[in-house]
Amino acid sequence: MPLPSTGPSDPDRLSVLEALHSTPARRYLSARPIADDVLWSILDAAVRGPSGGNRQAWGWVVVTDPTVKGRIAAWYREGWQRAYGVRRAELQNAPARDVGLGAAAYRATEHLAEHLHEAPVWVIPVLRDAAGSTDPRLGASIYGAVQQLQLAARAYGIGSTLTSFHVSHEEAVRELLGLPESALTMALIPLGYPARGRWAQPKRQPLEQVVHWDRWDAHRPRD
Amino acid sequence: MPLPSTGPSDPDRLSVLEALHSTPARRYLSARPIADDVLWSILDAAVRGPSGGNRQAWGWVVVTDPTVKGRIAAWYREGWQRAYGVRRAELQNAPARDVGLGAAAYRATEHLAEHLHEAPVWVIPVLRDAAGSTDPRLGASIYGAVQQLQLAARAYGIGSTLTSFHVSHEEAVRELLGLPESALTMALIPLGYPARGRWAQPKRQPLEQVVHWDRWDAHRPRD
Repeated sequence: MPLPSTGPSDPDRLSVLEALHSTPARRYLSARPIADDVLWSILDAAVRGPSGGNRQAWGWVVVTDPTVKGRIAAWYREGWQRAYGVRRAELQNAPARDVGLGAAAYRATEHLAEHLHEAPVWVIPVLRDAAGSTDPRLGASIYGAVQQLQLAARAYGIGSTLTSFHVSHEEAVRELLGLPESALTMALIPLGYPARGRWAQPKRQPLEQVVHWDRWDAHRPRD
Repeated sequence: MPLPSTGPSDPDRLSVLEALHSTPARRYLSARPIADDVLWSILDAAVRGPSGGNRQAWGWVVVTDPTVKGRIAAWYREGWQRAYGVRRAELQNAPARDVGLGAAAYRATEHLAEHLHEAPVWVIPVLRDAAGSTDPRLGASIYGAVQQLQLAARAYGIGSTLTSFHVSHEEAVRELLGLPESALTMALIPLGYPARGRWAQPKRQPLEQVVHWDRWDAHRPRD
């Protein structure tokens, strides 16, 4: 297993295995601008991700307008408050742990909710002909590409996180961005150079516990 | 933009940007075995992917048993036949194109449907507490990790594809694998060393057409 490092500054030199092990959610983002050519390169990597039947029924809405960000950020904070803010008492002193949110992760989500609009660029991936979908596997045609986006950003030293607390205001977001009636926003990904934190390996449950061999609950020790 | 190559054989030397641009669906897979330590390394990269609220409500079912593969492969072929096989007349002479399936891609899906059981390893990612879900964004907590799995496999020269034609037999698969009632299979990913084809860059629509700036249909030329 490759060990995460702070990462080389040359995007062409970061190995894929190191990137896969060192791209945590980054929620403390600076306002430093992202150059257009870097952003296009990141988007170009995203769209090489999988799309069922190669339909590419996607749109990638880049949001940089402060007014647009400001309005959506307010809706996002409301969504965050309902889902996470109400758990403040429970979470603000929670220990770090392999599963679920510890206090540090909770505070990071709170910071992001309060500072979302400061991230220089957001990307909102949208699926056309998906409004009203009840298919729990719909995301197979977008979230792999989103992961490509986040990994490409990582190569350039740009942090991101996959979040979606704006969706309680889906209709308002649709109207503000002029999205087609048939479109569904699948996430909101703020991009920015990290203001704090590091490219640490995400903590996870022991692999042996989540890998099953040929049958559920049939485990197998690693050599 | 990095140019795809056939890729270095040393997994630690493949750059992340090159990997992101050169990991197409591989549907012609050999029966050559995959070493256990390589498989564990691939799974270890997968679980570093995103999981909403860090819940990790996932299971990764590794399928290698020929009997299990044989039964699921028969169900998969049925699903493929209903979705794609019936389009044979339309697709078998279709030109290559940026969107949708051309003849070569169609034949590749047909080959996979007929030879799925020959791939040495499948991975079936499962979400617990998701059976019956109607949330179209459910996959945000699994498909990013699936993309990590496919990119890690790529680093080792192992091909894969994200497919799900088994889901028309979801209950039968659940029973065969002994999955919990509450679990939902999210995909079926055959892994194998490629028998033909290459690590080519996936063809996509021009980026300028799918990227929108601050508002849907507001496009911006690349410099």
